[in-house]
Amino acid sequence: MSSTVGQTIKCKAAIAWEAGKPLVIEEVEVAPPQAGEVRLKILYTSLCHTDVYFWDAKGQTPLFPRIFGHEASGIVESVGEGVTHLKPGDHALPVFTGECGDCAHCKSEESNMCELLRINTDRGVMIHDGQSRFSKNGQPIHHFLGTSTFSEYTVVHAGCVAKINPAAPLDKVCVLSCGICTGFGATVNVAKPKPGSSVAIFGLGAVGLAAAEGARVSGASRIIGVDLVSARFEEAKKFGVNEFVNPKDHDKPVQQVIAEMTNGGVDRAVECTGSIQAMVSAFECVHDGWGLAVLVGVPSKDDAFKTAPINFLNERTLKGTFYGNYKPRTDLPSVVEKYMSGELEVDKFITHTVPFSEINKAFDLMLKGQSIRCIIRMQE
Amino acid sequence: MSSTVGQTIKCKAAIAWEAGKPLVIEEVEVAPPQAGEVRLKILYTSLCHTDVYFWDAKGQTPLFPRIFGHEASGIVESVGEGVTHLKPGDHALPVFTGECGDCAHCKSEESNMCELLRINTDRGVMIHDGQSRFSKNGQPIHHFLGTSTFSEYTVVHAGCVAKINPAAPLDKVCVLSCGICTGFGATVNVAKPKPGSSVAIFGLGAVGLAAAEGARVSGASRIIGVDLVSARFEEAKKFGVNEFVNPKDHDKPVQQVIAEMTNGGVDRAVECTGSIQAMVSAFECVHDGWGLAVLVGVPSKDDAFKTAPINFLNERTLKGTFYGNYKPRTDLPSVVEKYMSGELEVDKFITHTVPFSEINKAFDLMLKGQSIRCIIRMQE
Repeated sequence: MSSTVGQTIKCKAAIAWEAGKPLVIEEVEVAPPQAGEVRLKILYTSLCHTDVYFWDAKGQTPLFPRIFGHEASGIVESVGEGVTHLKPGDHALPVFTGECGDCAHCKSEESNMCELLRINTDRGVMIHDGQSRFSKNGQPIHHFLGTSTFSEYTVVHAGCVAKINPAAPLDKVCVLSCGICTGFGATVNVAKPKPGSSVAIFGLGAVGLAAAEGARVSGASRIIGVDLVSARFEEAKKFGVNEFVNPKDHDKPVQQVIAEMTNGGVDRAVECTGSIQAMVSAFECVHDGWGLAVLVGVPSKDDAFKTAPINFLNERTLKGTFYGNYKPRTDLPSVVEKYMSGELEVDKFITHTVPFSEINKAFDLMLKGQSIRCIIRMQE
Repeated sequence: MSSTVGQTIKCKAAIAWEAGKPLVIEEVEVAPPQAGEVRLKILYTSLCHTDVYFWDAKGQTPLFPRIFGHEASGIVESVGEGVTHLKPGDHALPVFTGECGDCAHCKSEESNMCELLRINTDRGVMIHDGQSRFSKNGQPIHHFLGTSTFSEYTVVHAGCVAKINPAAPLDKVCVLSCGICTGFGATVNVAKPKPGSSVAIFGLGAVGLAAAEGARVSGASRIIGVDLVSARFEEAKKFGVNEFVNPKDHDKPVQQVIAEMTNGGVDRAVECTGSIQAMVSAFECVHDGWGLAVLVGVPSKDDAFKTAPINFLNERTLKGTFYGNYKPRTDLPSVVEKYMSGELEVDKFITHTVPFSEINKAFDLMLKGQSIRCIIRMQE
């Protein structure tokens, strides 16, 4: 690979030229990494709802042309000046948020919300110089989440790249770079259910199933799935969900249904939908005295969380989490090890695989609700 | 004292015959303790806002005649059947909430909200038989919070009585049976600020000052008092408060003022007013990534806590606490020891002392905002 170091690489990328229109695979130029950056050869990428949300661009400022993609695995091709924790050949996961190592958040044991590299959905350029590393016929193409993994090669800030065990299968662990860690970490790092406890999971998409997987691994005995689509319960059983509530099946609020099922409320709840109603229900369905609800799903900007303050005073706790409270560089290698040891089951999240040339099929599957995770093989 | 065991005791009590009218000290009859109960000789009691609130009876169901009082210290006169952890002569603090030892809350390490003995402001009788132990000329007089300490003798459920070190001065530690523990525990047991951290305290009444004392004892370096009365800052300095914000002095919301003072927010906030605006400000003034706000003040029934859910998702936590998360019987003896060792300073909370005959003066002092705690000496 040394022949490409310091050179612009020509490779294939899936370009989104317009909101909501199929991606077009074309040849792009990928500039070499600048100071503090890494150029990765992407081997596998998977599609996440966040890609679809910003590709659809309803309600956000559209930023096109753009290369989407942020859940991926790959190999370091070259590194820019000053990058010391990565070298060519390292196996790596790029992450949509980062860890500069120097800010108050990186220095805090409690936060993973790095001041410099925190997720920024509006930025379409690299932080170092405000420029894009992608171009086609001289026209710059925007980055997405600092990762843009729908490209055979991409440039990422080194603080957003986790070096992982080279023995880990990249076609599997690619899903750890976003959704699975978000849900799994929400449960194991934030909700922290005790063995034998009860946990309600709101939303049984990929993130919710990962949260359920966290409850299963933690030894929770009652894992109650809550979803508006009853058909999801069957699949969810693989992830430890052993009871199911569809709010549509009940006249009373779902928090009341759950409280009645559990003698006053669940020990923990994890909200993975982003619906404000679900957030309120998740909080109000936890037991007084010790109940803890964790918010994961991203709300709409105008939403207001509203509850009677006595619900807090009766010793309930409400926390939010971002990326399962994992610090990307520090913590991701150990999540990969949890998969390698068999503790965290990742394969069951992967329902489909398509070659890069069929990336638009991955979008179709997600839009139809047919996939949990669809892996896109970059090297055909 | 053995001569009174099993007998009705005649003694003086301060009876509230009507809402908002001065208490009248009269002779009452105090029946012996029934199964699971304790009769206490009250030596010192202090006045708390909760007494005044229910005496004033604005907005609650009035329950009169009633004997108020719930912050007190005394000596066990006799015990009812089945009471094994207390015996005549024990020094004790009666508490407005209790610890049955058998319910899910008592068995949980996290909760102190005993199912059986949790605070009940509407109950005016003993749980055991639904009767009052107080009477005057055959007319029952209602209990208050299961304690009714404005009486030379009172009957309390044994689960609401903490046995304490007999060397502890009862004229000082009586204030630990409610307000001081509520505020101090909110900080040391729930907010748990680290040494060197910043803490905002909303409300500089007795509970807020106790929360500040908790921050001081925890080694917080910035303790920011927030109150609508600037004159309170001077007194608050004794409790560790070293910065002050009066929301009235600013055009912008106080949470924004505090965020600007602290480079993004305080590490911890403790809300001790019960005002819904202060609750929202306390939550919104904590730093993203690690900030934790604790609600202590009791809200109005119709209040709604309202905030943008992104404030949670940016890794802020909101918790409520009840009685500083102390389990009365298990934990109170160790709080008394903290006072005995000099770690927790209690004397500075006591601004006034009056004889029992002048109990109405204690009400005047509190209504005028002149006292933090006024001790009422029951034995003149």
